[in-house]
Amino acid sequence: MPVKIGLVGCGTVGMSVLKILHTNPGLIEDRVGDKIVVKTVCDKRVNELEDIKKYAKDAILTDDYKKIVSDPEISLVVELVGGYTIAKDVVMESLRAGKQVATANKALIATYWNEIFSTAKKYKALIYFEASVAAGVPVIQALNEGLAANRIESITGILNGTTNYILSAMSRDGKSFASALKEAQKAGFAEADPTLDIEGHDTKQKLSILSSLAYDNWVPPDKIYCEGITGIDVIDLKFAKEEFGLTLKLLGVTKFANGKLESWVRPTFIQETHMMSRIENEYNGILIKGDAAGDVMFYGRGAGGDAAASGVLSDIIYLARNVVHETAEKMPYVMYNERKLNFLPIEDSEGEYFLRFTTVDRPGVLAKISGALGENNVSIASCFQRAIGSTVPIFVTTHKTKEGNIRKAMACIDNLPIVRSKTVVYRIED
Amino acid sequence: MPVKIGLVGCGTVGMSVLKILHTNPGLIEDRVGDKIVVKTVCDKRVNELEDIKKYAKDAILTDDYKKIVSDPEISLVVELVGGYTIAKDVVMESLRAGKQVATANKALIATYWNEIFSTAKKYKALIYFEASVAAGVPVIQALNEGLAANRIESITGILNGTTNYILSAMSRDGKSFASALKEAQKAGFAEADPTLDIEGHDTKQKLSILSSLAYDNWVPPDKIYCEGITGIDVIDLKFAKEEFGLTLKLLGVTKFANGKLESWVRPTFIQETHMMSRIENEYNGILIKGDAAGDVMFYGRGAGGDAAASGVLSDIIYLARNVVHETAEKMPYVMYNERKLNFLPIEDSEGEYFLRFTTVDRPGVLAKISGALGENNVSIASCFQRAIGSTVPIFVTTHKTKEGNIRKAMACIDNLPIVRSKTVVYRIED
Repeated sequence: MPVKIGLVGCGTVGMSVLKILHTNPGLIEDRVGDKIVVKTVCDKRVNELEDIKKYAKDAILTDDYKKIVSDPEISLVVELVGGYTIAKDVVMESLRAGKQVATANKALIATYWNEIFSTAKKYKALIYFEASVAAGVPVIQALNEGLAANRIESITGILNGTTNYILSAMSRDGKSFASALKEAQKAGFAEADPTLDIEGHDTKQKLSILSSLAYDNWVPPDKIYCEGITGIDVIDLKFAKEEFGLTLKLLGVTKFANGKLESWVRPTFIQETHMMSRIENEYNGILIKGDAAGDVMFYGRGAGGDAAASGVLSDIIYLARNVVHETAEKMPYVMYNERKLNFLPIEDSEGEYFLRFTTVDRPGVLAKISGALGENNVSIASCFQRAIGSTVPIFVTTHKTKEGNIRKAMACIDNLPIVRSKTVVYRIED
Repeated sequence: MPVKIGLVGCGTVGMSVLKILHTNPGLIEDRVGDKIVVKTVCDKRVNELEDIKKYAKDAILTDDYKKIVSDPEISLVVELVGGYTIAKDVVMESLRAGKQVATANKALIATYWNEIFSTAKKYKALIYFEASVAAGVPVIQALNEGLAANRIESITGILNGTTNYILSAMSRDGKSFASALKEAQKAGFAEADPTLDIEGHDTKQKLSILSSLAYDNWVPPDKIYCEGITGIDVIDLKFAKEEFGLTLKLLGVTKFANGKLESWVRPTFIQETHMMSRIENEYNGILIKGDAAGDVMFYGRGAGGDAAASGVLSDIIYLARNVVHETAEKMPYVMYNERKLNFLPIEDSEGEYFLRFTTVDRPGVLAKISGALGENNVSIASCFQRAIGSTVPIFVTTHKTKEGNIRKAMACIDNLPIVRSKTVVYRIED
């Protein structure tokens, strides 16, 4: 018996899902074991969307999602509305009705993890969300299945195409942040209001999902320390590259060591020779370190209708197969438990740092700064000074130290009379 | 009820499997839904292997695999013998007994694809083989599941750690092939008899598996054109890098276009800026181009006991879960059918080429060579000449042309009296 699905939210990704179901039906049917039929499509602009008729000509069109979640014939609901409001109702009501759910909604999954998965478990429904992180790159599945025997030591991700596009343009072409942002907007890689991307919130939600999967425990977004890329000065990218061979990326990093979980999003320098430094423009990449598999990296387009649809369809195929074979109730839910995770305070996080001091040009300045660093247990690894216009910034990289030491040192240094403006601080990762 | 497994072949990978089952049991049990118990271990040296007792103290030890395949209590057989002989009996007899099978045996899977999967289908048993390609990197699963909705346009793989280690050493350190091979042997990345690796056969088997999965059809290894890396001269690596920005990799490539499948293994130049040029030493990488997902790349350690065990254990977890939930009979087999695939003859394969001519040092030589190239529809993209010792090789890159044209041109050029030795020919890929 064909699997009847209902699609709620028919924007770019939803339309790509319909298109691919229409274009590759044999391929999908082979993998499911039966046909997939789109019974109902819900969108508030449903009557304006001409392509729906092209790709799903027999579908019922509605602007009321209740027609989908209350339809007993529909066993699989695809939620592509996004955001927190109606999307949450669609997902929760579908699960409560025992329907399987596929969603690409990172905000919803990251924010309501426990509520969603406890409901899924209670009603023996499955919910999958491959496209919520890195679109068509099957990294969710890799954490759930392919790396299932590993203790995950760390996750390092370039998870947001907008910020990576901006940093790539700044690094490659020497553009300012403002003009790189404009270029990204023009190329369709940044929204008119880019706040969620450039402030790191999008990366934080995706890192929350990956970390929750890796540690079988909800890692809530608000437990993740977060800095965005607004206001990054291109001179730091330029000199870090020329003098230290470093490239700046907005990284989302989670590490687990000594019983403590450390998780943060921040602009971070990595060596130019590192695989991840080659992830450029709108691409995403995730490096997962497992105790058995070692370093495994996943790379691909992190956005775009077809790429996200590829991820959504892998969920649909998996869920539909379980409907056809009546195995959905037997499949395990996403692993999670509510035991307490110990989070490492950001002050205790250890790493190397890149610092740029803006000071008056006078003898003894470097001595004062290095003195203040030393007093706070920050040891200099390399250092150079270069006149740029009327200022003579001092660039420093440090040996490994705690974030708390850096903060104390900065609090002290930024108050010295010789210092003209706030010191720039970036993390460096191996 | 715990899932009882039998392990046949307890070398490096087998021992790592036992070790991880012993170390991470809770993590694995959570994902399976019940315990996994190693009931029997078979190896011809089983009584010499002290660590078995450490990791699986209650296991029955035997040197007779029949004790495993004929044991009705054992529902899952792990075959890690390798090769074609006893391994084939273990796999086929297990499937015929309705047992689930996990194997890392690339040679067996690639060579007996149809026989293995038709038997599995007939006896409603599942066989998985994640570790057969790129060890712990979950690329088999990605083709089977994560990219399931995509038509695969191409697969490009660096699939063999030995050859990649050798080429990396030659490229980075200017080592000769012979001394790079010795270094690889010393570092444990090449066997005493390295033939299977350096002649490309190992890559060919892995490419056969990936291609068969991608096209739901057996792509037999002997349909794959294959050249190894023996005899590569370091001057080609040096000048291709300096003059054309190219890096040499042993690539396995399968493409599908216009109803025809093209599949080959050969040393191939790629641009230094290409993601895959950064895959160095013993690492593996696979770039899959799907019509929806676009370019997706997977990267990691392609060998090593723990890395391969990570792949084998992901199969074990998947299979054991299906045993626990009694869903194994309902899960789809690896998709395959026996409809005819059209293979593109290697002569019709199109690409750019790197050529090195060794000629006498005399006026008019370049004119003769470029004339012969032109007559065979090979057009020069760039060219340079440099005295190296007593010879003056001419390095040429071509525009896109057919392999057949290159071969005709070489047959002609290599017979010219001005040519001192056989022209060196490498493919260049985008």
